[in-house]
Amino acid sequence: MKQSLGARTLLYTAPVVVIGTYDRNGKANVMTAAWAGICCSSPPCVGVSLQKPRYTYGNIMERKAFTVNVPSEDHVTEADFFGMVSGKDTDKFAATGLTPVKGSVADAPYVEQFPVILECRLLRTFEIGLHTQFVGEILDVKVDETVLGPDGRPEMARVRPFIYDTARQEYYAIGRSVGKAFSIGRDLKGS
Amino acid sequence: MKQSLGARTLLYTAPVVVIGTYDRNGKANVMTAAWAGICCSSPPCVGVSLQKPRYTYGNIMERKAFTVNVPSEDHVTEADFFGMVSGKDTDKFAATGLTPVKGSVADAPYVEQFPVILECRLLRTFEIGLHTQFVGEILDVKVDETVLGPDGRPEMARVRPFIYDTARQEYYAIGRSVGKAFSIGRDLKGS
Repeated sequence: MKQSLGARTLLYTAPVVVIGTYDRNGKANVMTAAWAGICCSSPPCVGVSLQKPRYTYGNIMERKAFTVNVPSEDHVTEADFFGMVSGKDTDKFAATGLTPVKGSVADAPYVEQFPVILECRLLRTFEIGLHTQFVGEILDVKVDETVLGPDGRPEMARVRPFIYDTARQEYYAIGRSVGKAFSIGRDLKGS
Repeated sequence: MKQSLGARTLLYTAPVVVIGTYDRNGKANVMTAAWAGICCSSPPCVGVSLQKPRYTYGNIMERKAFTVNVPSEDHVTEADFFGMVSGKDTDKFAATGLTPVKGSVADAPYVEQFPVILECRLLRTFEIGLHTQFVGEILDVKVDETVLGPDGRPEMARVRPFIYDTARQEYYAIGRSVGKAFSIGRDLKGS
């Protein structure tokens, strides 16, 4: 039996990503976002939705670039902090001791200590409502060598990303594998 | 030390959602998608990116409505299957024994056995590249009573959603809580 909870942004699951930008003075800033997701395979694009008052909003508009940084469980505290204060009045890198590194292909900084980085140039801007969606073309993915498996691809158990629970405002780790995609469903084919 | 993996859609994490639609003959269809995410808080909106050849693409264009269904771990096999065959030539509900239910507010069917449903009307269509992003205004969220906690809100451990690992095409369960959002980062405030 289903119960109606009304019009809410209750999607399972929401990622936790940290958006890296430079402001007009070249100061590196980061903010945390959960309204994000891949939105195109070719060109490879990621969409990130932000509200106009965010410092990052103006930075992206000005520089036309941003990074999407995936924090590991080791940096839940820093990621949460990045979503609680504004870059207008806080140097979030200085406050956390994390290190900004200039992207090699995008005019935006990334967080050295985070395992997976998407360097993006702003491709499109979509006005939706309270949020504006920034569609970034992914120019390069940078991955920490420590999270790569023997086959050169990242391993989930090494990246250790975490998700955001919209219903309860809580972060959750990723658990065990529950199946191989484009494979486990094969048993139902032809049935 | 970071290693460049090139321009790829390697975002951690990607959700696994099942899009429910009716075709022009009123046949209920479902397909699985991972290029999805909340993209606005007000109005509450979810973005789902699909390629033009998909049967669901035409259905959304025609009916201007869809549901976003969150499968639990119990239905990994069905969700994978829904992404492997086309509604053009397969009745996916009949093939899996799952039950289509007509949405109460959107002109689209949902999967009765899945714990969380977002009923959406098509608000905007954004052409990006290979994928078109459908922005759906969430008109209602329907949640199975069995996944609600004593406080009336869904509990992650009862919903049991799973995510998609783009790097290895594998599904992963959600694990333990790693922190309270807008709380665990407080220790860094003012530092």
